[in-house]
Amino acid sequence: MTQKIITISRAFGSGGRTIGKQVAERLGIPFYDKELVDAVAKESGFHADFIEEAGEYAPVTSSFLFNIAVSPHPMSAMNTMSMADQLFVCQTNVIRNLAEKGPCVIVGRCADYILKDREDCLHVFIHAGMKFRAERIVRLYGETKQTPEKRLTDKDNKRRVYYKHYTNRNWGEAQNYHISLNSGLIGIEKCTDIIVDIANMYE
Amino acid sequence: MTQKIITISRAFGSGGRTIGKQVAERLGIPFYDKELVDAVAKESGFHADFIEEAGEYAPVTSSFLFNIAVSPHPMSAMNTMSMADQLFVCQTNVIRNLAEKGPCVIVGRCADYILKDREDCLHVFIHAGMKFRAERIVRLYGETKQTPEKRLTDKDNKRRVYYKHYTNRNWGEAQNYHISLNSGLIGIEKCTDIIVDIANMYE
Repeated sequence: MTQKIITISRAFGSGGRTIGKQVAERLGIPFYDKELVDAVAKESGFHADFIEEAGEYAPVTSSFLFNIAVSPHPMSAMNTMSMADQLFVCQTNVIRNLAEKGPCVIVGRCADYILKDREDCLHVFIHAGMKFRAERIVRLYGETKQTPEKRLTDKDNKRRVYYKHYTNRNWGEAQNYHISLNSGLIGIEKCTDIIVDIANMYE
Repeated sequence: MTQKIITISRAFGSGGRTIGKQVAERLGIPFYDKELVDAVAKESGFHADFIEEAGEYAPVTSSFLFNIAVSPHPMSAMNTMSMADQLFVCQTNVIRNLAEKGPCVIVGRCADYILKDREDCLHVFIHAGMKFRAERIVRLYGETKQTPEKRLTDKDNKRRVYYKHYTNRNWGEAQNYHISLNSGLIGIEKCTDIIVDIANMYE
């Protein structure tokens, strides 16, 4: 297929990761999620937990200072770039290298922006209404002190700020993706079907 | 079907109108385009040409003053609301009434926003890259003094301003639609297939 690299951006709780995994399985191509974090950890020296959290959310928070201490390679933070910026540069390199390797599905981490100049990509955005996502995160991740709605709003806002900071684009703007789907209305399985179907158009 | 009313918002030149027409034909339901303009003209007293232009674009321009003169019912503009606001109110009523009548496809005119509280709608956004749209508008509407790129940028900006003014939402934000598709990459026929397929899911 021409559109052999599929990036999936998603609103927290919308099932974008699940859809990405299913799409990769159906197309028989690698799904980069944990592997991406591991590759970034190896290249950057940052701790995987830090990458998981800081690689998609608000670019500068006080917890970054804490993470200098817990990073297995604290020296990597000791240059003129902020840790968040270093992490972004490193993620960019890893994502470009993964795309070079061949067909794959990459979830999140501004991959749509990082790979925007490649013509062999299919950029997807998955979102859903508050009710669908709230029920889903409680079912998958359990309850917390915060209401699920508050958790979702906070995550959305952080992701929006992070994306704007590093891409100067608006997160969730339809024009940045080839397909955007509301998984709450359409259903996770059907979203997978549509993406696989479009990817197969280009075989 | 549950999602029996399909609204199609679109970037100028992306083929959204064509897709809407094809979807309506395939589903055997009315396609409101010219009929909508006629109904608004009847209710408002505004001239069809004015409705065509001002019903989707910038809310306040000097050409509105010109249109007071050319309107067949100039008295209708002589109250405290601006003509653009009167037109919006009128369009809102017409769109709500059309939706009440039963399954249909409505293109543009903030129908996605006007019908946002109905649960039986499928809201679609169609967009495409500059190159695809530029070639398409030249082929369909011919050349003008302005470059096609300038025409597209102007139309997009006006539509964005109009939409923001009347809905307080950002035009083209994926979360406002159940499906957003890049017709340039996916193709107009395939976009039609996907929308028909999703609409039929709910039968």
